Amino acid sequence: MSKQLLQPPRGTRDFYPEDLRHRTWLFDHFHAVARSFGFEEVDAPVLEHEELFTRKAGEEIVDQLYHFELHERRFALRGEITPSIARMVAARAGGLRLPLRWYSIPQCWRYERMTRGRRREHYQWNMDIWGEPGVSAEAELLAAIFALFDRLDLARGDVRIGLNSRALLEETLRGGVLNDRPDAFPALCVAIDKLEKIGPDAVMELLTDPQGAIALTTAHAKQVVDWLQLRDLEDAAGELAPDSRALADLRGLFELLDAYGLADRVEFDASIVRGLAYYTGIVFEAYDTQRKLRAICGGGRYDHLLETLGGPPMPAVGFGFGDAVIGELLSDRGLQPECPRRTDAVVFAFAATERPSAVRVATALREQGHCVELVLGDTKLKRALADADRAGAQRFYLVGPDERARGVVAVRDLESGEQSEEPLPS
Amino acid sequence: MSKQLLQPPRGTRDFYPEDLRHRTWLFDHFHAVARSFGFEEVDAPVLEHEELFTRKAGEEIVDQLYHFELHERRFALRGEITPSIARMVAARAGGLRLPLRWYSIPQCWRYERMTRGRRREHYQWNMDIWGEPGVSAEAELLAAIFALFDRLDLARGDVRIGLNSRALLEETLRGGVLNDRPDAFPALCVAIDKLEKIGPDAVMELLTDPQGAIALTTAHAKQVVDWLQLRDLEDAAGELAPDSRALADLRGLFELLDAYGLADRVEFDASIVRGLAYYTGIVFEAYDTQRKLRAICGGGRYDHLLETLGGPPMPAVGFGFGDAVIGELLSDRGLQPECPRRTDAVVFAFAATERPSAVRVATALREQGHCVELVLGDTKLKRALADADRAGAQRFYLVGPDERARGVVAVRDLESGEQSEEPLPS
Repeated sequence: MSKQLLQPPRGTRDFYPEDLRHRTWLFDHFHAVARSFGFEEVDAPVLEHEELFTRKAGEEIVDQLYHFELHERRFALRGEITPSIARMVAARAGGLRLPLRWYSIPQCWRYERMTRGRRREHYQWNMDIWGEPGVSAEAELLAAIFALFDRLDLARGDVRIGLNSRALLEETLRGGVLNDRPDAFPALCVAIDKLEKIGPDAVMELLTDPQGAIALTTAHAKQVVDWLQLRDLEDAAGELAPDSRALADLRGLFELLDAYGLADRVEFDASIVRGLAYYTGIVFEAYDTQRKLRAICGGGRYDHLLETLGGPPMPAVGFGFGDAVIGELLSDRGLQPECPRRTDAVVFAFAATERPSAVRVATALREQGHCVELVLGDTKLKRALADADRAGAQRFYLVGPDERARGVVAVRDLESGEQSEEPLPS
Repeated sequence: MSKQLLQPPRGTRDFYPEDLRHRTWLFDHFHAVARSFGFEEVDAPVLEHEELFTRKAGEEIVDQLYHFELHERRFALRGEITPSIARMVAARAGGLRLPLRWYSIPQCWRYERMTRGRRREHYQWNMDIWGEPGVSAEAELLAAIFALFDRLDLARGDVRIGLNSRALLEETLRGGVLNDRPDAFPALCVAIDKLEKIGPDAVMELLTDPQGAIALTTAHAKQVVDWLQLRDLEDAAGELAPDSRALADLRGLFELLDAYGLADRVEFDASIVRGLAYYTGIVFEAYDTQRKLRAICGGGRYDHLLETLGGPPMPAVGFGFGDAVIGELLSDRGLQPECPRRTDAVVFAFAATERPSAVRVATALREQGHCVELVLGDTKLKRALADADRAGAQRFYLVGPDERARGVVAVRDLESGEQSEEPLPS
């Protein structure tokens, strides 16, 4: 087998013990925050029918699916879990008590040319609320994201959330730009989302491409790009009808965030639209304040997704929070923990004749709830002690011929160096 | 979207909250046992290069891979994780302190025609010891399996482990049956493994097929099938050289198991060979004593796998323990736990004007470490109380106009019915 095959597929990760301890540390925080907000964990297969993901808005996430045909069916590895969760909600709609508060930590896949160190798989913490139309749902999700940042010891000023509403944008465009083609709106948002990556000129090109799904006039496209510069909700308000529902929602959300003590950590930003076609209302993303990294997480309201899958109408809002960018940020800030290995005890038999006694010692300790490494081979004492140290062991149990004859096991506390003896279990 | 697409792909599972709680309950036991034996968790991608799995012994697990081509590379969803773990060991061989004690709980995939309720994915608890040639490693693994059974409250007599050694079989065949074709041995084991499923006549056919990889004479095949009937190690000993290494290993293992208090729960069974081509030595499987179900788990020694992947020689032994059969057994025995939903508190605002106060109550409780469901919409009190009951909530916090005016929140203990008041957090 070639050297290359000793590596995982390009862009994917192996988790050696030290990697897995870090992953578990992060996931434990995801779990803890989700539970503290009353969310229940769910999961779905990493493999789905490709049709579940098929949307027509030029989304990166759909264009980059790992997909294949097997026995005349087309499958794909999920690029995100929301369509699977929507499928699960639709399958039991009517039997589920709303609102649902569901979370998951799925591994998600995308096949793209490898650039800028982006990987082909990541884990994504997802939290979704189904069945609640009001912004109280958005507020809970934003509060959960900040609760995570606080648990990870990120300084209050290190991370912010930018907030916008696609409904707000749609309202401003409804009268003119998109008057005759409301169906082009999702594709328009997907194009706008590329602003930071490709710049305003390239976005103008996408919006005005006469062969494209959007095909705006240059004047209309300019109007859209200008709107994206707004950073003050009251400036936007000036261009909207006084009874704007989208504006009322955003104002209501900021009021609620004040009760959460979060109003100063969230800011209006008209350029945030997110890259998923199915968002319909409020959208948001979290980023490091210095703007050195990509968005840490993103989400929004998607009130029509269930219907497009054949389910009943049901409002929904959620976010996805990958393990990649937060990992980079924690490393930059020196906040990645050490996560050393820990073992309660190592049990060592001096020779083969003492092995049955050592087995009894290990078994008794395990039955008492301890984590015990039993030295398996004919290892020298010195090496066994060094291994115990690497394993982060607290105590070292030794059975030699003398101990066995006296019916005891020698115990060394590896921190204090203190020695004692305990009776051998029968 | 069609009704069918509201379901996960055929043979795969969605995990709704109650399903996931059961999964977590079982996985927590897997984790606890592995840790108590000093094992470290690892993981690898569910997607691997297909070549990692390619072996030529007629194995079901290789024939049933989910595999596909993408951009001129062939990939497969893992059918088992051992080749991935072997790849990881080989990639760092030399830098790893032996023996390694590694475990994982990967989801594994197989594509087969659906029969007898077998699914196309399952989770498999894997424990492997790398770098220890002696049976002390096998003994630890068998003890871990029984530790799990005991944790799950299975009665001591409900489950047993059958034990054999491929080396023992190979020794008996070396002089005659396989004299000139030792390479046929893995395929021979894979064929023998089908004994219980297809019966001795069909196995005879596989062994004697002149076009097959094994192509024994009828007399030799008969000799093999007869050997499989042995259930007493001393009967087998009579047909082996007195200095048989395989025999000494099995006897040594039974002696060690006695020290673990497990000798009476393990029995020699010459028909157990397991269906994976790479096993070389001791093999074992656990089953319900009534033999109503398929094997609960299986494993064995595979001392040559690392070399076949291009790594250095390294002895290894491990087992895989799926989540399917143990689930059936626990259900049969009435040992599946209830796993109800639990929440510490539900917080309810009487009307929109009280919502900011309710938010403050929920936030304060969460900061104290409680799991709190905040009622989000304009819900009637009666319905909110019923929902709190379903959520398994212990306490119900209510803020109405009167409470808000007095700066308090009403607290009802949902178990005792006791009512009290607490000051509203500022």
